[in-house]
Amino acid sequence: MSVNLKQLAKALNLAPSTVSRALRDSHEISQDTKERVKKLATELGFEPNPFASSLRQSKSKTIAVIIPEIENNFFSQAMNGIEKIAQSKGYHVLIYITHENFEREKSILHLLRNGRVDGLLISISNSTTNFDHIEEYVNAMIPLVSFDRVYESATIPSVTTDDVYAARKATEHLLAGGCKRIAYLSMAEGLSISARRKQGFLDALKKNKQATGITIECSNDDEKNRKLIRQLLQQKQKPDGIFAAVEKLAVNAYEVCHELKIPVPSKLKLISFSNSSSTALFDPPLSTVVQPAHLIGEETAKVLFKLIEKKILMPSEKKQVLPSFLNERRSSAGK
Amino acid sequence: MSVNLKQLAKALNLAPSTVSRALRDSHEISQDTKERVKKLATELGFEPNPFASSLRQSKSKTIAVIIPEIENNFFSQAMNGIEKIAQSKGYHVLIYITHENFEREKSILHLLRNGRVDGLLISISNSTTNFDHIEEYVNAMIPLVSFDRVYESATIPSVTTDDVYAARKATEHLLAGGCKRIAYLSMAEGLSISARRKQGFLDALKKNKQATGITIECSNDDEKNRKLIRQLLQQKQKPDGIFAAVEKLAVNAYEVCHELKIPVPSKLKLISFSNSSSTALFDPPLSTVVQPAHLIGEETAKVLFKLIEKKILMPSEKKQVLPSFLNERRSSAGK
Repeated sequence: MSVNLKQLAKALNLAPSTVSRALRDSHEISQDTKERVKKLATELGFEPNPFASSLRQSKSKTIAVIIPEIENNFFSQAMNGIEKIAQSKGYHVLIYITHENFEREKSILHLLRNGRVDGLLISISNSTTNFDHIEEYVNAMIPLVSFDRVYESATIPSVTTDDVYAARKATEHLLAGGCKRIAYLSMAEGLSISARRKQGFLDALKKNKQATGITIECSNDDEKNRKLIRQLLQQKQKPDGIFAAVEKLAVNAYEVCHELKIPVPSKLKLISFSNSSSTALFDPPLSTVVQPAHLIGEETAKVLFKLIEKKILMPSEKKQVLPSFLNERRSSAGK
Repeated sequence: MSVNLKQLAKALNLAPSTVSRALRDSHEISQDTKERVKKLATELGFEPNPFASSLRQSKSKTIAVIIPEIENNFFSQAMNGIEKIAQSKGYHVLIYITHENFEREKSILHLLRNGRVDGLLISISNSTTNFDHIEEYVNAMIPLVSFDRVYESATIPSVTTDDVYAARKATEHLLAGGCKRIAYLSMAEGLSISARRKQGFLDALKKNKQATGITIECSNDDEKNRKLIRQLLQQKQKPDGIFAAVEKLAVNAYEVCHELKIPVPSKLKLISFSNSSSTALFDPPLSTVVQPAHLIGEETAKVLFKLIEKKILMPSEKKQVLPSFLNERRSSAGK
């Protein structure tokens, strides 16, 4: 086993950049240090990584984007925003799709610690419950910014939308339309984004004494979700409003409403987080909470490039929260 | 100006791999050749590219995917298929979005000729009318496979769907439902895929003596498309069927139908190429021709890896044509 630059630097108690310069015979490094570095490099069998080497010389000019899915309007729009900024900086973009798989997310992060990229953007898989892999990555000193589904950490910058506020507004909209019993379809309870959306829902209900809230935990499995929603809509005390945390669950709710011939919005009002413009053509058109996906992508990439360029982040850039907006359509129309 | 490996090899009338080995003092190369190579390399100021260098040593283990857009179900599904195969091969995937811009497509291909990637997958922008940039890339001897929107060339492998057949089937479906006057909404007439879809439409009409066909050339501009469709549906001899070459145009047609209160399918039947499952929730549910996008992505990547691994392609792998299928829904229901 040979050591890498970082391990060599650690053994020498020097910065990796110093070790790198010593190995390249830089005039900035003293002769003593150079000899000490080269001696240990030989002893430990240090092998320069060709990518890391290209990185030291001219940067890899590459960033990586890790997202849970790509067949999803939010992520494809965010990807467009990221790509726009990367392009303006002359950077290449590596894309990795975790398919909501925690193990895959871990192995990608592990793979990327070798200096292949100058920085990393990540939106966390909904099966991720432990964040050691992100901590380890950050310890490797490669800039990282998380977006939308973020890892709540003091040191990692993030860009999100105001999920609590947006979920509260959506719930208040259903209440204003006359709903007395609202079901909230949630997803991935382990993620902070899910907790924030649920909190917004509960906040709105707390303020309204006449209405009741039900929360239903859904999953990635359409069949199981439809079954849960079918049970919900067939029980005695059925809801008169549904708020879906993600578009996928709203689609499941529409499918069940069509199947059970439940008229929307007269018997059941529906609203959902969604970034798909074709929801305007749904039968009936779906009311949505729209996240500024493209802008989230742009801002996330901008923060990453500031880190890559070793610029100081303004306090407001460390935790950016961008507003979502409510798109009222027929599915939630009041009496 | 320094020369790159390819230019140096050309000046020496040697293969780039020979030059590369000569510069690395490989025992496979004669002493005479080594001296000749090194002499000219010094004279011409040859500078090894760090990425090309890593490539010669251990491959870049990276492929690039160039697509026109990402906020499009076909491309995001194809991307998923590509990523699946790349992952199984332990490869990284660079993504480039041209936004249907020919100049951007050219500059990306130019950028990628430096050995950053082991191979390239491309689906061509709809504003591309000249293919010199692809010929040049292929001349640089880096494997390339095109998919869906392909460059028709004897030497470049491609994976497509049976567009002529699928478009003919869709048109025949409208004719069977009683349509007598069908409008075909086309896009990007310069691409072979558009020519193939239009041909399928015209083939079906040629066989049917009682029906007439109209073709309307649309664009990326929603406002202009809606205007064209509005004019079409307000003229005296208006169509009783619309076949949209891409989903975007079907959405524009729905918008105009809702606006002009034209009942679908009783007054106008609609069908479209589309890979979006949410078309099932449209009002009324949209009949679609669905391309096997995920499979196209997988097959395209598999062919590329065969080229990268210097395997011989079977004749059937050089030009793969995969079947699309018709999804009949209410928007095209017959009497």
